[in-house]
Amino acid sequence: MGDYEHVLSKREDDTVTITMNRPGRRNSLSEPHLRELLEAFTEAGESDATGIVLAGAGPVFSTGHDFADVAERELMDVRALLRLCTDLMGTMQSVPQVVLARVHGLATAAGCQLVASCDLAVAAESAGFALPGGKGGWFCHTPAVPVARAVGRKRLMELALTGDAVDAATALDWGLVNRVVPDDELDDAVAALLARATRGSRASKALGKQTLYAQLDRPEQDAYAIALEVMASAAQLPGAREGMAAFLEKRAPDWPD
Amino acid sequence: MGDYEHVLSKREDDTVTITMNRPGRRNSLSEPHLRELLEAFTEAGESDATGIVLAGAGPVFSTGHDFADVAERELMDVRALLRLCTDLMGTMQSVPQVVLARVHGLATAAGCQLVASCDLAVAAESAGFALPGGKGGWFCHTPAVPVARAVGRKRLMELALTGDAVDAATALDWGLVNRVVPDDELDDAVAALLARATRGSRASKALGKQTLYAQLDRPEQDAYAIALEVMASAAQLPGAREGMAAFLEKRAPDWPD
Amino acid sequence: MGDYEHVLSKREDDTVTITMNRPGRRNSLSEPHLRELLEAFTEAGESDATGIVLAGAGPVFSTGHDFADVAERELMDVRALLRLCTDLMGTMQSVPQVVLARVHGLATAAGCQLVASCDLAVAAESAGFALPGGKGGWFCHTPAVPVARAVGRKRLMELALTGDAVDAATALDWGLVNRVVPDDELDDAVAALLARATRGSRASKALGKQTLYAQLDRPEQDAYAIALEVMASAAQLPGAREGMAAFLEKRAPDWPD
Repeated sequence: MGDYEHVLSKREDDTVTITMNRPGRRNSLSEPHLRELLEAFTEAGESDATGIVLAGAGPVFSTGHDFADVAERELMDVRALLRLCTDLMGTMQSVPQVVLARVHGLATAAGCQLVASCDLAVAAESAGFALPGGKGGWFCHTPAVPVARAVGRKRLMELALTGDAVDAATALDWGLVNRVVPDDELDDAVAALLARATRGSRASKALGKQTLYAQLDRPEQDAYAIALEVMASAAQLPGAREGMAAFLEKRAPDWPD
Repeated sequence: MGDYEHVLSKREDDTVTITMNRPGRRNSLSEPHLRELLEAFTEAGESDATGIVLAGAGPVFSTGHDFADVAERELMDVRALLRLCTDLMGTMQSVPQVVLARVHGLATAAGCQLVASCDLAVAAESAGFALPGGKGGWFCHTPAVPVARAVGRKRLMELALTGDAVDAATALDWGLVNRVVPDDELDDAVAALLARATRGSRASKALGKQTLYAQLDRPEQDAYAIALEVMASAAQLPGAREGMAAFLEKRAPDWPD
Repeated sequence: MGDYEHVLSKREDDTVTITMNRPGRRNSLSEPHLRELLEAFTEAGESDATGIVLAGAGPVFSTGHDFADVAERELMDVRALLRLCTDLMGTMQSVPQVVLARVHGLATAAGCQLVASCDLAVAAESAGFALPGGKGGWFCHTPAVPVARAVGRKRLMELALTGDAVDAATALDWGLVNRVVPDDELDDAVAALLARATRGSRASKALGKQTLYAQLDRPEQDAYAIALEVMASAAQLPGAREGMAAFLEKRAPDWPD
């Protein structure tokens, strides 16, 4: 994959692993870092890979925005930075691949937002999660958007207002992550869940993932209006036709692209 | 109740039990089956019963759409089939009765959608739940609509993207079902929960159930705009007046119809 | 704080404790009681306190509307009562302070709605929660609005349709409260959680809390449209600037007002 300064992007088989690589800055999200993450996700999204893993190099996953890159900005420049960050979150949801967060150490502020914005997340049992703006300075307004949609209202309020970290077991109980495993089993668990989540027809699954995000957080009848039309047309896709044919013929499917 | 080919509909006291009865096809939802389920729910909805149990005959609850009835359909015909299925889900929510799913064996794809669309669900501890389109063929776009609204985002993603089944204990933990009981206690648990959920004035409760679905998934102030008007007018219903009078007079209520 | 007939409002350090004080009527919410609660919250909201605790005097937290004050009302008068009640819930969410429910005994109907509408809630382990309109009289239409947004769909249906109480451990598991503690540790736990939730710049946190409610229950992109603008302008607040400066200079922050 492309060559980046702050990010490692590496393809292996059908998976692209995008690693935040500013360990000396705890993988904080400076503007150049965010810009490269967006480029790397866009590049991976345009590839024929089926899965993307988002990971962090060094002791933590990511601690969110880089205050050294925010503190001196005027309003319009902070706005531009946050717009870039929000574009990254949207791109993670709109790429056709399944996106899985590999979380270790700490995922705080916009780092926690990254975890909440990935389709799936696997955490090491020593990992912690927080919205530290709740300790009283720059409130985590935008990180709270996807975190609220994962953990529910009262838990969101606790995270956002106290700024305190919760451990991985709590994050699992609250629905912020899908799996918690001993630290030395993290890579195996990431690979195992991603393999299960990327099986089958790539085109069918890509449409599936994108439609899930389109229908969430809407009144149920509005959600059906979207999902019904997609599901009807999806039945005509080669992947759907092969899946049904294989089932009816009691044989293993031979998935098209 | 009416005479159907693929469905058994039986009234006993105040409860109508609608049983999907295509065990040889694992209660899959062919168009004739869906059509009869819609008729049976409409008929039960127009009766003076207070509760409806949805059950499945044979080894499983339901495995969702019948691929033999989908595989050869053109786009407009799949659309019509899905519209019928969505109408069934909407009818289950709009009938005045409390609708309770009695789940055993497997509830997969649109079968899992049925569970999520019932007001309440009781599962045998051996039951499993899945959105198997996630294995890679025809993605479970429409089943994901009510399942997302029961289990939250990350768990929805796991179910929808992996296609793997979760057991009844996990379904309970995630909020997809209300009770899990040993298999041989399933009927007793269904009857016990339904009895508690159908107490009191039928008219008050019917309005209550329908209003719940109207206010869900909306910004809180929009939800209040709906619920406040209903609650004000509901205070004038005979059931509400009797409930309040009985409370104030410290006597048991004598519920009107 | 002001002098009320049905409510005690007491300032201690940075916290205002508002106590429902109609123990002989189980702190039920008559119109005069609601009106005073709204006044007390408005008064506390205009103060420079950082936190508000809502508590109940006597054996229970609150049992909701006072049927003696509802039973004889005509439609327009019930509507006015419910509008007052809904205004109170909205005011609890719009005041700049963190609002925490201290729950003991029972919180039922609009009393349960109060718990769900507070930002945070701490419960004694002997506390119970219910939407008793589900037993069959006046259905809990408006209490179900914030309760649904805390506990999810199937659990809301169970509470609203059965009217049965759930214990504090269940309320914690379902996300209706943030902490459950032994009864004799309730005040300490309330103080401890409120202290953590009110740290830091008051203005930053007030904007944070209000923005959380603005972005909830909306499609994610709509929520980002709100949160992004607020977060950009919030970076210019003295609290945010001090927080970032202190972090970068590796010193403790000196929070502005």
